[in-house]
Amino acid sequence: MADYHGEEVKNKQVLARDYIDGNPKESDMYFSTNTIRLKVPDGSNAVLVKNLYLSCDPYMRGTKEKNPDRLFNSFAPDSPIVGYGVAKVVDSGHPDFKKGDLVWGVTKWEEYSLITNKLIESLFKIEHTDLPLSYYTGLLGMPGMTAYAGFYEVSSPKKGEYVFISSAYGAVGQLVGQFAKLMGCYVVGSAGSQEKVDILKNKLGFDEAFNYKEEHDLDAALKRYFPEGIDIYFDNVGGKILDAVLLNLRPHGRISVAGMISQYNLEEPDGIKHLLKVVYKQIRIEGFTVYDYYHLFPKFLELVLPYIREGKIVYEEDTAEGLESGPAALVGMFSGRSAGKQVVLVARE
Amino acid sequence: MADYHGEEVKNKQVLARDYIDGNPKESDMYFSTNTIRLKVPDGSNAVLVKNLYLSCDPYMRGTKEKNPDRLFNSFAPDSPIVGYGVAKVVDSGHPDFKKGDLVWGVTKWEEYSLITNKLIESLFKIEHTDLPLSYYTGLLGMPGMTAYAGFYEVSSPKKGEYVFISSAYGAVGQLVGQFAKLMGCYVVGSAGSQEKVDILKNKLGFDEAFNYKEEHDLDAALKRYFPEGIDIYFDNVGGKILDAVLLNLRPHGRISVAGMISQYNLEEPDGIKHLLKVVYKQIRIEGFTVYDYYHLFPKFLELVLPYIREGKIVYEEDTAEGLESGPAALVGMFSGRSAGKQVVLVARE
Repeated sequence: MADYHGEEVKNKQVLARDYIDGNPKESDMYFSTNTIRLKVPDGSNAVLVKNLYLSCDPYMRGTKEKNPDRLFNSFAPDSPIVGYGVAKVVDSGHPDFKKGDLVWGVTKWEEYSLITNKLIESLFKIEHTDLPLSYYTGLLGMPGMTAYAGFYEVSSPKKGEYVFISSAYGAVGQLVGQFAKLMGCYVVGSAGSQEKVDILKNKLGFDEAFNYKEEHDLDAALKRYFPEGIDIYFDNVGGKILDAVLLNLRPHGRISVAGMISQYNLEEPDGIKHLLKVVYKQIRIEGFTVYDYYHLFPKFLELVLPYIREGKIVYEEDTAEGLESGPAALVGMFSGRSAGKQVVLVARE
Repeated sequence: MADYHGEEVKNKQVLARDYIDGNPKESDMYFSTNTIRLKVPDGSNAVLVKNLYLSCDPYMRGTKEKNPDRLFNSFAPDSPIVGYGVAKVVDSGHPDFKKGDLVWGVTKWEEYSLITNKLIESLFKIEHTDLPLSYYTGLLGMPGMTAYAGFYEVSSPKKGEYVFISSAYGAVGQLVGQFAKLMGCYVVGSAGSQEKVDILKNKLGFDEAFNYKEEHDLDAALKRYFPEGIDIYFDNVGGKILDAVLLNLRPHGRISVAGMISQYNLEEPDGIKHLLKVVYKQIRIEGFTVYDYYHLFPKFLELVLPYIREGKIVYEEDTAEGLESGPAALVGMFSGRSAGKQVVLVARE
């Protein structure tokens, strides 16, 4: 690699036209190229990175409701899209990072990014490079930590329990299912196509899976797959499927809510009718964010790295090549077109 | 007291005509008198008691939905009403109880009851008799344990937090409020009359209280009393007030659900629209039953007895005199007429 220090280079970017409300469209984004000096400002603690992989994740939509706890908005007028990625440090004013380090965390949709202020706190140094670097956008990154925290820390799982996962083929869901199988649970997932259902059953080791789009009566579908009821529901979807799950929980059942993707874009949210089950069956419903659990990252790696190396955890990725393919990849992730975790390859090391 | 051993006596009873669906009416009950031998059957481990106080509690309604975890149904055809009470042991075949013991637990609406089988497990010996025995139907009994478990064990309370309690003047709510004040929380309760509101504020030490019947916009009411939001909602009510609370929770807010009295008798339950907050604010909603916490009874007494003796916890009771007044007292509890925890005095020791 050339020594970029101080050099000025062209920097291709994917910019947002404006804030968005709901799922992004390709027309919400445009390309531009600026120049960037490959050096952090003197005296700053910023980190300048070369982006290698960018991650397409469900949280990147715009929400009517601003979440004040949110670290960042992915879309802001004439600013590069903000999201998770894997990058290489080109220059650093921060004591924790030095030139040549590989990192994952929150970066921007452009070739080179200057990471400043609070976002530096979300950068993690990559210590294990024997695995594909793209895994740090998924299996070994934020979605992996979300699955780990949501299953082991929030769901209080026990061997032999009955586990249901919605959006089971998503970046988080496919991992939760594999964690649950490794713990000796019975695991069923729902997804939005027969192809995804087949992969869940044949490649990811789910006991059963079904296409929710073909089930007119979700309660009946759940009763078919869980004649004994559900102990843990890992919810990525909310709405009608959550309501149907409430009818099928066992006593002391738990619902861990990572997201409610069916509800974000509705004018009027679905009314949930079966909350009375919370009392009758001593149910716990818990929403969580991965940000509260990042201190467990080393513990997470300790668990997950051996599993990956032994082939006991597999992971499905869909890689779009080149920054130019980013907008279409992001839109495709929201419409369910991605065949696994959607990643954009910006540059090889 | 005469030695009743073996003697046959008249035994006045309050019987149910049938199972009920919803709140009981006086016409659902009738009186009868049988005779009872004041001795347990030879070789049985039953306990024969003389009932002193009977308790009127919200769980005594009939529910469309049978809860399989429920220990008992209060109403069954031509059987005495079943509920909590305080009693004195007249004869016992059980090693844990002997003649003369005072007990509280599940008994029947009659002068003398033979407690058998599983219900014996719910009998507690009364060890502290320096306090009114009627307290063991409330403050020191099942409602007290419900308040204790729901607040200390389920709600993860911290000093200085903002606590809201619905049905705050009920047997459970008034205690939760006092526990929360003793922990240094800010406490607001809702109730169904101005009189109850006044007692909550002036006698039970709540910081604020309001009459929910006079609030057309519950969200606005909560914003008025909790400009900074709610950390803990102790829910006895469910439905619309729960939905309004979801709009006003602080990050990591907790909702501990002891009951959902607004929902039990509805043909169609209220649809809860604001569950998305569970994700945005990392909310925990947890239903619980006191049956899972009775092992903490000694710990509960250790906490609560000194508070009562020092006058730091007060308790409002409404005592109906005589078994004959039982049906009206029970119906009055459901219609909100009781001035505090509703008790029926059957006999003085």
